[in-house]
Amino acid sequence: MDPMVRIDLALEAALACTDVPGAPPRLCAAVRHAVFPGGARVRPKLCLAVALACGDAEPELADATAVAIELLHCASLVHDDLPCFDDAQTRRGLPSVHTAYGERLAVLAGDALIVLAFQTLGCVRTKAPHRLSRLFALIGNGVGMPMGIVAGQAWECEPRVTLRDYQRAKTGALFAAATMAGAEAAGGVASDWAALGEWLGEAYQAADDIRDVAADPSLIGKPIGRDMALGRPSIASELGLSGAVTHFNQLVERAVDAVPACHGAQRLRAIVRAESERLVPAAWCRELLRVAA
Amino acid sequence: MDPMVRIDLALEAALACTDVPGAPPRLCAAVRHAVFPGGARVRPKLCLAVALACGDAEPELADATAVAIELLHCASLVHDDLPCFDDAQTRRGLPSVHTAYGERLAVLAGDALIVLAFQTLGCVRTKAPHRLSRLFALIGNGVGMPMGIVAGQAWECEPRVTLRDYQRAKTGALFAAATMAGAEAAGGVASDWAALGEWLGEAYQAADDIRDVAADPSLIGKPIGRDMALGRPSIASELGLSGAVTHFNQLVERAVDAVPACHGAQRLRAIVRAESERLVPAAWCRELLRVAA
Repeated sequence: MDPMVRIDLALEAALACTDVPGAPPRLCAAVRHAVFPGGARVRPKLCLAVALACGDAEPELADATAVAIELLHCASLVHDDLPCFDDAQTRRGLPSVHTAYGERLAVLAGDALIVLAFQTLGCVRTKAPHRLSRLFALIGNGVGMPMGIVAGQAWECEPRVTLRDYQRAKTGALFAAATMAGAEAAGGVASDWAALGEWLGEAYQAADDIRDVAADPSLIGKPIGRDMALGRPSIASELGLSGAVTHFNQLVERAVDAVPACHGAQRLRAIVRAESERLVPAAWCRELLRVAA
Repeated sequence: MDPMVRIDLALEAALACTDVPGAPPRLCAAVRHAVFPGGARVRPKLCLAVALACGDAEPELADATAVAIELLHCASLVHDDLPCFDDAQTRRGLPSVHTAYGERLAVLAGDALIVLAFQTLGCVRTKAPHRLSRLFALIGNGVGMPMGIVAGQAWECEPRVTLRDYQRAKTGALFAAATMAGAEAAGGVASDWAALGEWLGEAYQAADDIRDVAADPSLIGKPIGRDMALGRPSIASELGLSGAVTHFNQLVERAVDAVPACHGAQRLRAIVRAESERLVPAAWCRELLRVAA
């Protein structure tokens, strides 16, 4: 099955458990608005790709893991868009959740999505319950304190932060959780997959910084120039645009090299390269470097 | 060990895992502010009391369960106090989290507390990993959608809601999770303990409504008259003050009767009565009924 179809079916199943008679209808609608239509589903696709590379021994557990990671990502976007943070009016080309449903339901939808991520994992049937608690820990570390995405966002409230600490927590942690948890869910060794997630997280953040400066807003479905306007640390402002592009390409190579030996290694390396091409097309890189030269 | 000491030690241990070098210091401080000094710790005390009544076979698991429930409760208070909801300046007699640390860190502290609840459970060592996934499901249902406390708060954003649906989700669900998860953690049968939690949740909400109308704000550490000012459904406004007091007393009796047969049943019934006396002292009930007559 196409991974995007597999992910959306699993997300639909998770949301179906919440939208039942007796549930507050506007919260259900706000939660759905936060999850569908999706973006590129980068993190759950990565999670499933790793699970497949490791043999996908328990597809139901891998699906629940991918869903948990995507729901946590969606929650972070909803809260990140709130008036007290980015005050973003749009997301994925549509009104952001607080724009469509109000600030209160946006706070609650984010909360509900965080809980739903763990509910989804808690409800899955597995032959290996000991793996489940490791999944909770891996995913919890990717999203919570001291160094998950919530901590990453909190660095925006500190007077000083290094670019690396900020981006590692805000983006890298959930990428690392996606690769490690994907492996764990499929019976692999989670720690072997940390480096791949970390390099990909850094590459993705670099791409995001490049696109924030250089892209057409209609291509990425959200306002651009926000990082700079909000005075956030950014690779593009630290290294310049051409420096950031060179850095991005190096990070992609490191990610490719970090794929551990396994049955599906070759296929996974091809996926990593295709994803990097989607984020910052090679032709675009050449153009940016030519203009900067 | 005194249950309050046991709970605070377990909460300290959970928070210690988050406040490490590399974590954003202001988020750590905001999270601590949300948890210490605590209120009455009603839900984790109830959870531990049930675990003890069931034999407390796995104290570490019972502690983690009680901690998870209290952290989720603290998270709900932090988000409930936000400007877009109650806009409460104080909580437990101190500045609310957003008053002390700003709105952004209050949103993030709530998120971090939700995640920490599940991280704490995910990290516990247990002889019975199959029990862990049931605990995740029980606690997730108490706090998430479709009928947990997040859904309860979301009913405040709907044009119509019945008092019962609202209060069951906003308060009852986490009380029921506390009794059921306390039993599950100690090897008991969770479903036998649902009714106790549900009646206690209703009694607690009735007491809260009574205190919101009748109490001295210095006694409860937060502003009073908020439910009425915010037009929220309330037992006191539906039944009148004396009706609410009579209703409260009936609910406490139902809770006492709902304690299942077990080794510690008698002790647990005494705890329920003592707790109800703490919430709405019998002398105070008589006075309220006399004034209303």
